[in-house]
Amino acid sequence: MKLTILGCYSATPRTFTNPTSQVLEIQNHLFLIDCGEGTQVQLRKYKVKFSRINHIFISHLHGDHFFGLPGLISTFRLLGREKELHIYGPKGIKEAITLFLKLGDSWTNYPLIFHELESKESELIWEDSKVSVRTIPLEHRVYTNGFLFNEKEAPRTLDAEAAHRYGVDRSQFNNIKKGADGVTKNGEVISNKKLTHDPPEPKSYAFCSDTVYNETVVPLVKDVDALYHESTFLESEEHLCDRTKHSTAKQAAQIAKLAHVKKLILGHYSTRYKSIELFKEEAQGVFSNVELADDGKVFDL
Amino acid sequence: MKLTILGCYSATPRTFTNPTSQVLEIQNHLFLIDCGEGTQVQLRKYKVKFSRINHIFISHLHGDHFFGLPGLISTFRLLGREKELHIYGPKGIKEAITLFLKLGDSWTNYPLIFHELESKESELIWEDSKVSVRTIPLEHRVYTNGFLFNEKEAPRTLDAEAAHRYGVDRSQFNNIKKGADGVTKNGEVISNKKLTHDPPEPKSYAFCSDTVYNETVVPLVKDVDALYHESTFLESEEHLCDRTKHSTAKQAAQIAKLAHVKKLILGHYSTRYKSIELFKEEAQGVFSNVELADDGKVFDL
Repeated sequence: MKLTILGCYSATPRTFTNPTSQVLEIQNHLFLIDCGEGTQVQLRKYKVKFSRINHIFISHLHGDHFFGLPGLISTFRLLGREKELHIYGPKGIKEAITLFLKLGDSWTNYPLIFHELESKESELIWEDSKVSVRTIPLEHRVYTNGFLFNEKEAPRTLDAEAAHRYGVDRSQFNNIKKGADGVTKNGEVISNKKLTHDPPEPKSYAFCSDTVYNETVVPLVKDVDALYHESTFLESEEHLCDRTKHSTAKQAAQIAKLAHVKKLILGHYSTRYKSIELFKEEAQGVFSNVELADDGKVFDL
Repeated sequence: MKLTILGCYSATPRTFTNPTSQVLEIQNHLFLIDCGEGTQVQLRKYKVKFSRINHIFISHLHGDHFFGLPGLISTFRLLGREKELHIYGPKGIKEAITLFLKLGDSWTNYPLIFHELESKESELIWEDSKVSVRTIPLEHRVYTNGFLFNEKEAPRTLDAEAAHRYGVDRSQFNNIKKGADGVTKNGEVISNKKLTHDPPEPKSYAFCSDTVYNETVVPLVKDVDALYHESTFLESEEHLCDRTKHSTAKQAAQIAKLAHVKKLILGHYSTRYKSIELFKEEAQGVFSNVELADDGKVFDL
């Protein structure tokens, strides 16, 4: 599982800081999460193959999270895309994007499929045999969802060496792969677990931006391998959180601690501060395994 | 009159090439012409003061000419703008921008005034005492206008030294400033022209992008000091012009020659070519005073 940060600064794009967008590579899928202005340029800069993106998840309809979407969709068309593109985002996104494209008589020549979200409960929005994606309802100034990406547990794989050691013959291998126990020549039952390898531990990633401090997300992100949680402010500006519905680095760390996540990744920084290291220092007062997102940074999870 | 090119490449934004946007500084106004994705970042990069922009002219509603507009409008709000912002562009632009902002509950706190264009004839769309702006109807795949910026002739200014020389006394100065002739002590009439300075020659700039080769623009851009004319292709790709409604460098030069403009500035280059110098070479076969737009380039006109 690999996370590439394309942009992780709040509000307006600037020469060296980009608004929110990131790419999660998981089980051969490339999921694009949020799409602030300039995302397509960031995708080129960090050499993400456009053709591998089939699913785009938009947290909410503030400009710094979706104003790059019309341009990206248009570019897919110019690149000759034919595959379906699925877009998950708040109700209203379809009308807005459709209007923008129609004005320029630039409707796509590939299937563009919108999945509009309006539930206030966490819901399963996509899955295949290996991965599931659920929403994480967040509390912001407008309707907002985070997203939880879970690998599913892979099937156990045959341990031929163990089978040989226990004296379980090859004729049983297909059944063992399907979960059956083995039987030796002497009639002794060997449990399936002893004849198969443990699958790799499934990984999980939770994206939570933008949101005010909100403990209702804790059970949803419990034990995840990595939690990206917004930290627009430091504690010194905590008084701004209630009005703007953003969090401080310390609050992000409190959520990480309560949810026992393995790693906390901070982002969505206000550009008012001299150094993003200040966010890490503040969060580490509460939770030790903190990393800082930054534009172009890659996390191997 | 100063023209700053923020972006002048066709189609999608890339790491080092930006879609169309330019700033014309004329008689203390800063006019923004077109606003492709990333324009606000280019404005910062080239240190254009956001607060000096009060008028934005959008040629047409293809993404590479207006997808930067919602972000720029939002940034004006974040910067605390209170002044009116006037936007001139094809019918439909108001609905699209309004929808994008309303979705994010981000309506502006400053007056945002749309002037929607739908005439197929050239029309005066803005003027003050020193400058006028007219549309230049262009022929593209969607409704498109170029824009003609004309300085108005300034009033003649008193030449006090000449008045003294002719023996015209001070009591007549106010009338002379208003256009009256002078009279000497001996009753001799001195023409106003002899008692005043010629005003500086008024300058003019025409922006024509995007368009197929179209001689109906010639009378509209006649004798301008600088004509920016799109040259998406070289002559080797002229066969693409009819379908895409774009021009070659040679065709741009033909328009410049027919209109006797003083300078031709090329832009809106397809990125398929190795060097933009090829556009200049091709155009100079027809018209000598050719310059190449490039991102970040400034023309003092």
